[in-house]
Amino acid sequence: MTALQIALLCSIFVALLSFFLSAVFYRWVKKQPHSNPTIEKIAGFIKSGANTFLKKEYSILSIFAAVVFILILIFLPVPIWKGNPLSNFFMAISYLFGTVLSAIAGKIGVTATTVANKKCAEAAKKSINDAFSVGYRGGAIMGMAVVGGSLIGVAAIFWIFGDATMLLGFSFGASSLALFAKAGGGIFTKTADISADLVGKVELGLPEDDPRNPAVIADNVGDNVGDVAGMGADLFDSNVASLAAALVISSSIDTACNTNFTPIVFCYALIGLLSSLIGILFARMGKNGNPTKALNSSTYTTMGLFAALTAIVTAVFFNEDVYWRIYGASAIGLTVGAVIGIATDYFTDDRRRPVKSVASSSQKGAAFTIISGVSYSYLSTLPAMIGIAISALASYKLCEPIAESINATSVELGMLGISIAAVGMLSIVGMIVANDAYGPIVDNARGLAEMGNLGDVVLERTDRLDSAGNTVKAITKGFSIGAAGLTVIALLGAFMTEVNEAALSLGLGANFLNGFDLLDPIVSFGLLVGAAVPAVFSAMLMLGVDKNAQRMVDEIHRQWTTIKGLKEGKPGVLPKYDRCISIAGSGAIKELVPAGIMTIFTTLAVGFVGGVKAIGGFLMGNIVSGLLLALFMSNAGGLWDNSKKYIEAGNLGGKGSKAHKSAVVGDTVGDPFKDTAGPSINTQITVVSLIASITSSLFITISIF
Amino acid sequence: MTALQIALLCSIFVALLSFFLSAVFYRWVKKQPHSNPTIEKIAGFIKSGANTFLKKEYSILSIFAAVVFILILIFLPVPIWKGNPLSNFFMAISYLFGTVLSAIAGKIGVTATTVANKKCAEAAKKSINDAFSVGYRGGAIMGMAVVGGSLIGVAAIFWIFGDATMLLGFSFGASSLALFAKAGGGIFTKTADISADLVGKVELGLPEDDPRNPAVIADNVGDNVGDVAGMGADLFDSNVASLAAALVISSSIDTACNTNFTPIVFCYALIGLLSSLIGILFARMGKNGNPTKALNSSTYTTMGLFAALTAIVTAVFFNEDVYWRIYGASAIGLTVGAVIGIATDYFTDDRRRPVKSVASSSQKGAAFTIISGVSYSYLSTLPAMIGIAISALASYKLCEPIAESINATSVELGMLGISIAAVGMLSIVGMIVANDAYGPIVDNARGLAEMGNLGDVVLERTDRLDSAGNTVKAITKGFSIGAAGLTVIALLGAFMTEVNEAALSLGLGANFLNGFDLLDPIVSFGLLVGAAVPAVFSAMLMLGVDKNAQRMVDEIHRQWTTIKGLKEGKPGVLPKYDRCISIAGSGAIKELVPAGIMTIFTTLAVGFVGGVKAIGGFLMGNIVSGLLLALFMSNAGGLWDNSKKYIEAGNLGGKGSKAHKSAVVGDTVGDPFKDTAGPSINTQITVVSLIASITSSLFITISIF
Repeated sequence: MTALQIALLCSIFVALLSFFLSAVFYRWVKKQPHSNPTIEKIAGFIKSGANTFLKKEYSILSIFAAVVFILILIFLPVPIWKGNPLSNFFMAISYLFGTVLSAIAGKIGVTATTVANKKCAEAAKKSINDAFSVGYRGGAIMGMAVVGGSLIGVAAIFWIFGDATMLLGFSFGASSLALFAKAGGGIFTKTADISADLVGKVELGLPEDDPRNPAVIADNVGDNVGDVAGMGADLFDSNVASLAAALVISSSIDTACNTNFTPIVFCYALIGLLSSLIGILFARMGKNGNPTKALNSSTYTTMGLFAALTAIVTAVFFNEDVYWRIYGASAIGLTVGAVIGIATDYFTDDRRRPVKSVASSSQKGAAFTIISGVSYSYLSTLPAMIGIAISALASYKLCEPIAESINATSVELGMLGISIAAVGMLSIVGMIVANDAYGPIVDNARGLAEMGNLGDVVLERTDRLDSAGNTVKAITKGFSIGAAGLTVIALLGAFMTEVNEAALSLGLGANFLNGFDLLDPIVSFGLLVGAAVPAVFSAMLMLGVDKNAQRMVDEIHRQWTTIKGLKEGKPGVLPKYDRCISIAGSGAIKELVPAGIMTIFTTLAVGFVGGVKAIGGFLMGNIVSGLLLALFMSNAGGLWDNSKKYIEAGNLGGKGSKAHKSAVVGDTVGDPFKDTAGPSINTQITVVSLIASITSSLFITISIF
Repeated sequence: MTALQIALLCSIFVALLSFFLSAVFYRWVKKQPHSNPTIEKIAGFIKSGANTFLKKEYSILSIFAAVVFILILIFLPVPIWKGNPLSNFFMAISYLFGTVLSAIAGKIGVTATTVANKKCAEAAKKSINDAFSVGYRGGAIMGMAVVGGSLIGVAAIFWIFGDATMLLGFSFGASSLALFAKAGGGIFTKTADISADLVGKVELGLPEDDPRNPAVIADNVGDNVGDVAGMGADLFDSNVASLAAALVISSSIDTACNTNFTPIVFCYALIGLLSSLIGILFARMGKNGNPTKALNSSTYTTMGLFAALTAIVTAVFFNEDVYWRIYGASAIGLTVGAVIGIATDYFTDDRRRPVKSVASSSQKGAAFTIISGVSYSYLSTLPAMIGIAISALASYKLCEPIAESINATSVELGMLGISIAAVGMLSIVGMIVANDAYGPIVDNARGLAEMGNLGDVVLERTDRLDSAGNTVKAITKGFSIGAAGLTVIALLGAFMTEVNEAALSLGLGANFLNGFDLLDPIVSFGLLVGAAVPAVFSAMLMLGVDKNAQRMVDEIHRQWTTIKGLKEGKPGVLPKYDRCISIAGSGAIKELVPAGIMTIFTTLAVGFVGGVKAIGGFLMGNIVSGLLLALFMSNAGGLWDNSKKYIEAGNLGGKGSKAHKSAVVGDTVGDPFKDTAGPSINTQITVVSLIASITSSLFITISIF
């Protein structure tokens, strides 16, 4: 057996182990004690609402996937009449496999969290420790399934087709689904959240999660379809994309130079998953411990394990010089990810100056909440941008010298270094997903506790769990944004590899493309257009939320005035939750399609106008402005959210003060920033990079310039 | 006499003509009838306030300029011990000349507008036509002086030193002063504006421009120092930079290939000025005509004249093939400038969907004003980004083939094409300045009319003049942002030319640098860091406004409660205007310094870390994200401003409605966006490009990578 085969086998084994643990946790969560009938009923509404939306969304997306499947079959990797039809078939199959696995990841997540939410509410009656275990394990079900699924998918595609290019098709399938899932879920959740707050809290003066509010269930459904299903698909896709980029580059080097870089990429991926599994198993709160510590300690355990295990495994493959370079690249990724996370955390931590200062500005009025929030969030982009820039530079320079001894080009090795740093950064992706899914579970649990009248002690416990989730998210978010940045830079390298392979097969000679010079006006043309795309994309999503919220607000008003006994809280009278869920859902689907199409269309348009060089510039412009906007919007949302909470904790006049009213405006603005537009941009960038890579041969053949 | 000498002589002649007309207009404005004593008194306050601030600002900046002068003397263009000390002396002198001329441009503008404002108020008593003439000619004084000054400065430096590199020093002097003037003026004006509105209008319920408001004079002073002095310095600098970029490239080609491109650059510049002069002379309102038409028609006259005259002059220099290419590049600049302006106008026009839709969203609350405003402004970046991308690509490709016949490199000719397009776009700069200065004059006139009790008819007239100014600004702004974009792309070309010349003189051989490859991690390192700079820069300015407004609000409160009879409007009791002016001024100076230093420092840091390649990426990252943010913030400000005005015109409930309150929040957020951060970014980009060019030899010698 070759080293590659062993690595593939081990990968599949660890992925299966991960599925097994996921199933064990699911059974455990399901076995937890039942809740009271009110909660059961409401949890049932949430579950069926989430499933209805997913079904609707997936059925629309299956049409899209079918169209793309046929297009790939005809045109990619090269038009069917020019190349080997079998490759087109394989590529199409890989694409389909990617979409299906990504959809399943979302579905598993929703299934797990819609059970865990009610169990967590019930467990909170006993103790915060019990509630934590249920919430955390509920999230872990999804974390393990997502990462296991991505690893097994990548390993299977690679093994079956023996061609890393097919991975780009697989990854494109995953990310095109993630784009819609993330954007659609993001529009859904913020439509519901904003409308529920706007009419319920502000206009009618109802408390949070009041069951008389017709949008309250839609809000909880939104948490599941946006934060869980959408985010699951998104991180599935990020992980696949980072592996695909690394494997395309490594296998191209391995083929040409007879080296062994591909097995090490798989090893790093499987060690990351294994470390996450162990980290998850070790997440426990001590007696009266605090949940933030428990979450962070499992993250640090994972990081430590990853660093230690990779140190050992790398030694199996390489001599001393290469060892330090490859291991160094992955260590850079891991370290810089943590640094970005911690630096970003500064801007959203309520003990630090930014949050306090925005809260204090709010005393002057909402305009100042916005101005100071925007300003601090602009500042907050700096550490991450520098972090990504430095880690790309350092990992490239570290691996570049390997080229000499194996007779490869220094660009290839440099890009391999960047892609390994991205894999290192995403090693803790299992933890990230688990933590991210934990948030909506405890958030839902809080809602259920409120609606099921479980009392103030339970509410206080779920609140504490919720706030721990928010804090931890800030750090893990640093990893995911950083990894996305590095992955797309590596994908630019993969793009060049693909272009040159396609050019060779089209008889255009070797080294058809040798770089993207900024002084070439075709490159800067692509750069400028590419930079505008994330702005337009997020604008379309936010306008979608705005429009959709309008429809929902009308519906809430209608129910409030026409349903008798609702206003007075007459027992047995419930609003028509399903109407609100259906409005949020169909609106989200209607609004997400144009944004997705625009992204794909612009990429193709730039490619057909300027050819592969324009696409190179386009990708880089997209990365740069996408990172900037994603960081800005995510951090602004977190900053405003925490400023509001800081005031609600009794500072600067507390709830109901002028500062609080202004802070609520900031928080509402921040909602679509951080939960709709910001995180969708990551996926948008990845989709664009992958489309570009797999369609490269078309742009070589057909372009105006 | 050579063609170049003739072109230089003609340039100087037209520039002198421009000064002469400027002086004629100034005398004419001064001779207009006197106003009533109250207005005289208040106008006196405004004048002395503006002059005090300028004096203070310039005295601080003279220290900065002195330090830079010495640094240039020692280190640039090459360290004094390595090269010819005389070049260092020339460079330092050029730098100083640039700062002085730029400062004078600002000073002339303020002198003109602080006389024209009161005359305009008085003229409005007679008719709107008379008021228009005074306002417009007042603005034209500055327009003609600024453009005349920049042309005479460039021609003089070029003639005396015979070395285009010195122009970069001259341009750096102009732009480094503009950076501080624009940022300082921007902080001043918004501090005063926001504080006056916040306490005066919102809290105390005083009408706009009520003389009891202690900040009311500071607000008017702000219009002069921000919009007039700052903007004058800024456009002076843009014009110089675009000429410098074109001349560095053209003279490098002329020297190497014995061609005649430099004279044509001067010809285009002087024809632009001449056309503007004629356009200004023809600006008349017909009987009962409308001021928007008058302003636009003079802009179109200028464009038509420029297109016609350059068509003739170009024929003198070139044969048919080259003729169409050079003339084509300048025509592309002119046309695309207009297209960008018109497309951008769509997003801020109150008869179009964006403004109406933001106004309608405001009914739901301030958060929706912000969300929809941010979304539309993100969308608004697309036409300009595509316009700049296409005009750069088209002008490059158009001029590239000339290279073959004259034995130059295609990059050089392509970059020449881009720089000629930028010159074409800035041909109407005289009109832009005139229109931009017209705005504050009529705005001030309105304030004086209010404070001097000139009655409702006069107010209605000045309001109409004011609103015409805002509409026209949207179109001319398209030109200035577009030209800035093209200029900095051309400066990237100039940067490479400079690096290669420096490398040659350092004995590093010819073609030391042959491009900036995006796959080179040093380039992408620069790109990512460069992209973060405009965000950080604007954040620092906006936080400066926020902090400074806080100080001012406290002062207004203090005066309101301690000055007896002020509240009641007792005759003869006036607030202490000078205290507010002094707070706005010293605060602005305090807050602008760190932002300016950060910009310069980061450029040097990236250069010393990554060398010239990192700087190439840094410049491009800076351009891309700078354009994006500048467009976003400028358009958002205009959009919110007009949405508020749309509601105030009686739509959606009019003044005092919920929608209006929300729209006021949007307008307040938009103020520092459009008048502090947005327009300063243009200057920031130019400064960075110029520093990079003149310090290139240092980064060749000293850098880590």
